[in-house]
Amino acid sequence: MSGPPPAVAAVRSAVRRVLSELPDGTTALVACSGGADSLALAGAVAFEAPRSGVAAGAVTVDHGLQEGSGERAEAVADVLRKLGLDPVRTAAVRVRGSGGPEAAARRARYGALGEAAAAHAPAVVLLGHTLDDQAETVLLGLARGSGARSLAGMAPRTGRYLRPLLDLDRATVRAACSLMGLSPWEDPHNHDPRFARSRVRHEALPALEKALGPGIAAALARTAGMLRADADTLDSLAADLHGRALAGGKGTDLAVGPLERAEPSLRSRVLHRAALQAGCPASALNARHVRELDRLVTEWRGQAHIDLPGGIRGRRAAGRILFER
Amino acid sequence: MSGPPPAVAAVRSAVRRVLSELPDGTTALVACSGGADSLALAGAVAFEAPRSGVAAGAVTVDHGLQEGSGERAEAVADVLRKLGLDPVRTAAVRVRGSGGPEAAARRARYGALGEAAAAHAPAVVLLGHTLDDQAETVLLGLARGSGARSLAGMAPRTGRYLRPLLDLDRATVRAACSLMGLSPWEDPHNHDPRFARSRVRHEALPALEKALGPGIAAALARTAGMLRADADTLDSLAADLHGRALAGGKGTDLAVGPLERAEPSLRSRVLHRAALQAGCPASALNARHVRELDRLVTEWRGQAHIDLPGGIRGRRAAGRILFER
Repeated sequence: MSGPPPAVAAVRSAVRRVLSELPDGTTALVACSGGADSLALAGAVAFEAPRSGVAAGAVTVDHGLQEGSGERAEAVADVLRKLGLDPVRTAAVRVRGSGGPEAAARRARYGALGEAAAAHAPAVVLLGHTLDDQAETVLLGLARGSGARSLAGMAPRTGRYLRPLLDLDRATVRAACSLMGLSPWEDPHNHDPRFARSRVRHEALPALEKALGPGIAAALARTAGMLRADADTLDSLAADLHGRALAGGKGTDLAVGPLERAEPSLRSRVLHRAALQAGCPASALNARHVRELDRLVTEWRGQAHIDLPGGIRGRRAAGRILFER
Repeated sequence: MSGPPPAVAAVRSAVRRVLSELPDGTTALVACSGGADSLALAGAVAFEAPRSGVAAGAVTVDHGLQEGSGERAEAVADVLRKLGLDPVRTAAVRVRGSGGPEAAARRARYGALGEAAAAHAPAVVLLGHTLDDQAETVLLGLARGSGARSLAGMAPRTGRYLRPLLDLDRATVRAACSLMGLSPWEDPHNHDPRFARSRVRHEALPALEKALGPGIAAALARTAGMLRADADTLDSLAADLHGRALAGGKGTDLAVGPLERAEPSLRSRVLHRAALQAGCPASALNARHVRELDRLVTEWRGQAHIDLPGGIRGRRAAGRILFER
């Protein structure tokens, strides 16, 4: 007896590993757009869940951004039901708000997925992100230039969101989708050069691969995993240092003493956290602001206050860094 | 009275800052290929050094890789002498050995620069690397996929090597070169697509810039600085942990106890360091090997030894990780 083709076996095995670690009684909900990645995930979950004794359903989100998106969501839901997933929900959302169209769609989508998980609690949401998505996320983070956390990409698990396919490349997952006899729907936004992710996928990554060799997506994904572990350690050490620097003061004020003696990487994290707590908007607070705050600690020669975003001023007085409106 | 053009002022100011921090009696030697970046550096050093009371000379290395390279090195040395730098040396090197032509040329060059610095001790060597070189170095490090240190790029100072122009973009530095009336020599290797750096410069970075916006080189350089600080902290914490894990054993053996309780980012660094100490060649030791060693610590269920590069075996016995030939 021959087993399934290697691509199908790889996707199923990744799914099986994740399902086997779920607590008893957890419902697994596949977030499925109808695209090849999440459809392959749904097919593998529908195959593995009964064998693992896990209840498995799916959610498909109608973003309402394209003509006929409601009908398409219903068609995807039909396919998911025919796979044997149950419950299958469609969730219509309204995409709006700040931060650009991709961020707004993402926010609306995760809102609907969170609601579906809450309605079937205890439940987890399985997402179809692949190693190539991870590589794209790292490059998008590089463009922000804001350090380890922004290069750490997506975690295999964040709360109730799990990414079973994060170690598999997109070619394998797409092959599995096709070998399972499933017909994906290709979102035209994935090819729309107005979207940064689409430009990264279709222009930047191929150019990097041409310059640096074919292993670049895997190297980026590996980097993400290592930098995530680094960022976890440094954030936890910075939280300890922040606690020590807050002691003996009031509000968000920081004592200079513990900061002076700390490693630069931890001091800059604490200054960043403190500025956020003082009310600086995260979107406007950048590395230059943090560097100026750092100079109040390490290059103190009586300088004046510094202006931070959100109308906050940082200054040093009596051995403490103060944040004031 | 009007000052120099902004590009010239920017390069001179960066040089002045570095010269002002040199201990009295130090000779500053510019490493100058004759290319625009290092020629601009030489021009600015020749201008600033007398004003800062610093003795300043230059070294130009003849790699012997191209027809007429010896004559060219002499011509560059003439230009440097006419700028008023003294002493000016040319150093002919033989490029050979392992690791590819770029690595071999780099090794030979730094050998010659180190000798020149030793001959004029106490001396520092000033290198003309710009922000764009830094961005390229980060991308080359990304391709290795080996974590924070490989993304940390070049330091503003490493021992006696200083990089005054690391915060300036190449366009500014080249403009300064031209405004100083200096005629650079363009190394054809910089445009040769056989070299990874040339492909990154002329293909990968422009594609990334097109996909992600014009600030990408600066973002990569900023990232390098932050990750260098992170890597310094983590390496120092890992050295402490390594010391604790070595206690009570012999040779390179590690006690499992301290490793089990450590953060994953520190544990993986210690396992990597220990495998290198045990004799695994750095070029062959990769993240997968370290992950397998990690499983001996964190997922111990009596597994057999694991094979590491260089004929080394890692195994666990009596609560220790042993490295054996």
